[in-house]
Amino acid sequence: MDLKKIQDPHFLKDLSVKECEALSEEIRRFLIDTLADTGGHFSSNLGVVELTIALHRQFDSPKDRIVFDVGHQGYVHKILTGRAESFTSLRQHGGLSGFLKRDESPHDVFEAGHSSTSIAASAGMLFAKPHTDIGHIVTFIGDGALASGMALEALNFIGHYPEKTPIIVLNDNEMSISENVGHLARMLTKVRMRRSYRSLKRRTRRFLPKFLRGFTTRVEQRIKGFISGYTTFESMGYEYFGPLDGHDFKQLFQAFETAKKTLRPTVIHVRTTKGKGYEPAENDKTGRWHGVPPFDKETGDFKKKTAEGRASYSDIVARYMEERIKGDTPFYVVTPAMISGSKLQGLKDRFPEHVIDTGIAESTSVTLSGTLASEGVGTFLTVYSTFLQRGYDQIIHDVARMRSPLVIGLDRAGVVGGDGETHQGIYDIPMLSHIPHVTIAHPRDGRELIRLFNRAFHSGRDPFVIRYPKMDVPFDEALLADDSPLIEGWELIRDGASATIITFGPMLDELDDLIEREDLDVRLINSRFIKPLDKETLDAVPLDKPLLIHEESTLKGGLGSMILQYLATHRRVPPFRQFGFDDAFVSQGARDEVLKDYGIDAQSVIDALKEMLDEA
Amino acid sequence: MDLKKIQDPHFLKDLSVKECEALSEEIRRFLIDTLADTGGHFSSNLGVVELTIALHRQFDSPKDRIVFDVGHQGYVHKILTGRAESFTSLRQHGGLSGFLKRDESPHDVFEAGHSSTSIAASAGMLFAKPHTDIGHIVTFIGDGALASGMALEALNFIGHYPEKTPIIVLNDNEMSISENVGHLARMLTKVRMRRSYRSLKRRTRRFLPKFLRGFTTRVEQRIKGFISGYTTFESMGYEYFGPLDGHDFKQLFQAFETAKKTLRPTVIHVRTTKGKGYEPAENDKTGRWHGVPPFDKETGDFKKKTAEGRASYSDIVARYMEERIKGDTPFYVVTPAMISGSKLQGLKDRFPEHVIDTGIAESTSVTLSGTLASEGVGTFLTVYSTFLQRGYDQIIHDVARMRSPLVIGLDRAGVVGGDGETHQGIYDIPMLSHIPHVTIAHPRDGRELIRLFNRAFHSGRDPFVIRYPKMDVPFDEALLADDSPLIEGWELIRDGASATIITFGPMLDELDDLIEREDLDVRLINSRFIKPLDKETLDAVPLDKPLLIHEESTLKGGLGSMILQYLATHRRVPPFRQFGFDDAFVSQGARDEVLKDYGIDAQSVIDALKEMLDEA
Repeated sequence: MDLKKIQDPHFLKDLSVKECEALSEEIRRFLIDTLADTGGHFSSNLGVVELTIALHRQFDSPKDRIVFDVGHQGYVHKILTGRAESFTSLRQHGGLSGFLKRDESPHDVFEAGHSSTSIAASAGMLFAKPHTDIGHIVTFIGDGALASGMALEALNFIGHYPEKTPIIVLNDNEMSISENVGHLARMLTKVRMRRSYRSLKRRTRRFLPKFLRGFTTRVEQRIKGFISGYTTFESMGYEYFGPLDGHDFKQLFQAFETAKKTLRPTVIHVRTTKGKGYEPAENDKTGRWHGVPPFDKETGDFKKKTAEGRASYSDIVARYMEERIKGDTPFYVVTPAMISGSKLQGLKDRFPEHVIDTGIAESTSVTLSGTLASEGVGTFLTVYSTFLQRGYDQIIHDVARMRSPLVIGLDRAGVVGGDGETHQGIYDIPMLSHIPHVTIAHPRDGRELIRLFNRAFHSGRDPFVIRYPKMDVPFDEALLADDSPLIEGWELIRDGASATIITFGPMLDELDDLIEREDLDVRLINSRFIKPLDKETLDAVPLDKPLLIHEESTLKGGLGSMILQYLATHRRVPPFRQFGFDDAFVSQGARDEVLKDYGIDAQSVIDALKEMLDEA
Repeated sequence: MDLKKIQDPHFLKDLSVKECEALSEEIRRFLIDTLADTGGHFSSNLGVVELTIALHRQFDSPKDRIVFDVGHQGYVHKILTGRAESFTSLRQHGGLSGFLKRDESPHDVFEAGHSSTSIAASAGMLFAKPHTDIGHIVTFIGDGALASGMALEALNFIGHYPEKTPIIVLNDNEMSISENVGHLARMLTKVRMRRSYRSLKRRTRRFLPKFLRGFTTRVEQRIKGFISGYTTFESMGYEYFGPLDGHDFKQLFQAFETAKKTLRPTVIHVRTTKGKGYEPAENDKTGRWHGVPPFDKETGDFKKKTAEGRASYSDIVARYMEERIKGDTPFYVVTPAMISGSKLQGLKDRFPEHVIDTGIAESTSVTLSGTLASEGVGTFLTVYSTFLQRGYDQIIHDVARMRSPLVIGLDRAGVVGGDGETHQGIYDIPMLSHIPHVTIAHPRDGRELIRLFNRAFHSGRDPFVIRYPKMDVPFDEALLADDSPLIEGWELIRDGASATIITFGPMLDELDDLIEREDLDVRLINSRFIKPLDKETLDAVPLDKPLLIHEESTLKGGLGSMILQYLATHRRVPPFRQFGFDDAFVSQGARDEVLKDYGIDAQSVIDALKEMLDEA
């Protein structure tokens, strides 16, 4: 069938199992073909083809609410709800979102980009249900997301309401974004191996009349207690079904129909194979095929390669940390499930004892690493800028207030590209700038990155945050041996008399080039320390000439606002313009497209400057 | 013995059980006598007298790390580590902290004010242990704190490391701050009732030789699976002991000694009676005796009463919400464990279906209430300003980005008094101001509070945050019927030509009085909407006269910084001063003492103004 002709998932109701299987094949082919061109979240979507078809066949979306956790595994859902045609624009500027998006479809009942919120959202819907026409509430959550605190506390909370009937579909693919962490993961593995138990359970169910169900349950518990010790969900108040084969329609249909009739909170444990139908992804154990750039379908080679003599910031950081681990004093790298994303796989393979992956547990990763550093052990926490939002309170209490000498690397700071709105690294500066004792820095390039890290680990007191973008930069291994003096304060990139521009990161070179090309007489300052401000340099800014400040970040609470406060209080504010994101969620797209869209690309800064000079 | 002579807990090693019991009596008497005068956290400390003595007797603090969760139950610990003498200054300006504080003692190895961080902190210490002289790591956590996501994810994480040996002491008093929530709580209750099982377990252990331990465990699991279905901790990878009587020294000593020798992560489940030894507190089921003002020892009456014709902001909010619940459309009040603190007990008793207590699960409370409101059901989330920090990411993603019409009440905004550093409500403005679509308001008094709530519930789109301090204000029930037009924008309190002062909340009346008394010609503006700014009013501010902005909040990202950005970009910045907290954690004390200390009381503002006028 032509997937692009699908308008609505209702056609699924009439399909036989065989037809559903054929449709699965079709969808898998479509996903592989399309994503080979566009890139996107790959393995997780191939894994949930049957599961998503079965959900839309047995439930009536959007009256029945299907709540996707994270939503990067929602591609099949998008196809079934009439969006196949838009896939060529997936994750591109102005194109189809890589996550669920209510603007796109009424079937996208809840939007998420960060993990583990789906159960709490479902709880909200459960309370709304008696007052609305909401039908069943089906939560679709992965095993990695379930091990996160927010999912666990919401699961525990709903267990308090035995009359509420959420249907929680646990998509267990033995691997969240990279490897799964925690005892819960090991426990699920155990359960998966209890095929004998499952068939026993099914047999018991089948042959005993309904009125004996209560008794059965007790007998079952006894057997289970003996065989596997696995009663976690049941002890939390849930009816538990599973583990089912997530690629077997018959099992799925049956389980969903049973769940519909169950009058208690229910967990359906479904086992799926990530990357199913595409061999390189099926065999991937490290998460390389979680999110992919365009690739060659035949060979499985990624088309986008890092150019010779360049490296991503993540890669440079991983290399730098390797040298620290090899050093004389104990050293740990901590990350909340970003082993693959932050290029730490090699490091973890070589030094497994020194790389601590907490799983999707950002709050825990902050408090753990902050305490480890407070105990005098060298510690580096690496986390995406956007995910540190989950550890804001812990940064205040357990890191800053404790004056822990924790060094934090904020990966993907600034505009992130295809992940869009939910992943933009544009809030960490306002989130951190008002916290006492925190230093925030942002390097201009790979060399400065290393010097900033040297500085950070040298200080030995108070948290030090270094942010860096998702970007390749020139890199040479020799830079790692940099022993130049420890940098402090801002840097004068070029001097000039007619105006001052202050910025940090990649925008420095872009502006420097433009100023050169347009032959302007402008002072350009690298504010590599966003906090604390370099007051000496600020005291030298002429008050009668324009001052322009650029930050690839949110304006409120940002660098420009801190500079304004300093000048307004201690000196005077010169003719002023600032560039950054203000009061808007910033959509997906390539960095240069997005900056242009929001009027904060280099050319916009220079145009504004010339206007100010003309006015003066 | 004279508690004030205690220097160090080592004297405990020599005490017999009888002597420990006598010491417990002594400490209880001391706590009741002292707290009757000073106020403070009461019930939780009376409950853990034996437990804390036993911990310090069996372990060697600080080499053995005793990590207190929250720390408000650390009073006995403070007495045993040489701080009894300082108790008269408890929670007062410059006095003894109500929480653990490393400045006070080397035995305070971890500071906390917010719940549920202790297990993650202990994880950090577990990784530091091989590189330091750290001995045992003992985590002391309550049942309420354990149900919070962060505790659960950390518990799950440590289960991944069977060779790590944390000793987690679960202090189960059937009630965290108010009533316990979630299935975990129900499960613990169940276990508590299984006395028969416990004695069975102990008998089995005692009589079977060691080499049969493995077999025993299997037999035990079978019995447990059958009897109670309770294997949660064991299924997460922990050796489990309990439930023990937390007031029986023999049981506690034995359990701690056994735990020391256990080579796996261990949970010791201890049952204690909150408020033990003081009848009114023992019988308290609502948390009234959790944190108390000074009280009459004999009668149990609180000495601090709300004066006639006045009410706390929390009380007014509860009354207002009661009217909403009684209205024609469905309406819910959601709170993360702040039923007692935010004066919602009466409301919960009268309308149990309409008050949702998520337990200490701030993130879940935000996403749940945001989604409920998004589904079109009237919803009010009430949370302390400081605790909303745990829901920052969820406010961005699940409330603001979803444009949920959730109304949020931020209780205890501003300086909070005795709770001090960890509880100051001074970060919510910078935390929220950079999030798109969020309105932030702060009333001048009870009347304006009600008008702001009317406005918030009328808007029907986008989140609306109303913050209010811990404070009594004049109140009359008739105000609830206020049907005055919906307020917008700022309010001119008094006009004047020589300068402009902008502020909000209680400082308005204080400044108004001072201006009157000192006969100054000053314009005073009530910026009751902190965001969005009232641009019309700002456009009328004279640029040649001083502008002073006061906020009982952190400066970076605050009201003053937003006003500066507006003026610098659209007009020009007049002679400027701002008053607020900058780059400092703010210590405990009465509000007027603290404001004076940090130079942001009304007199300091007026003094600065006069200085500016003299200079001009």
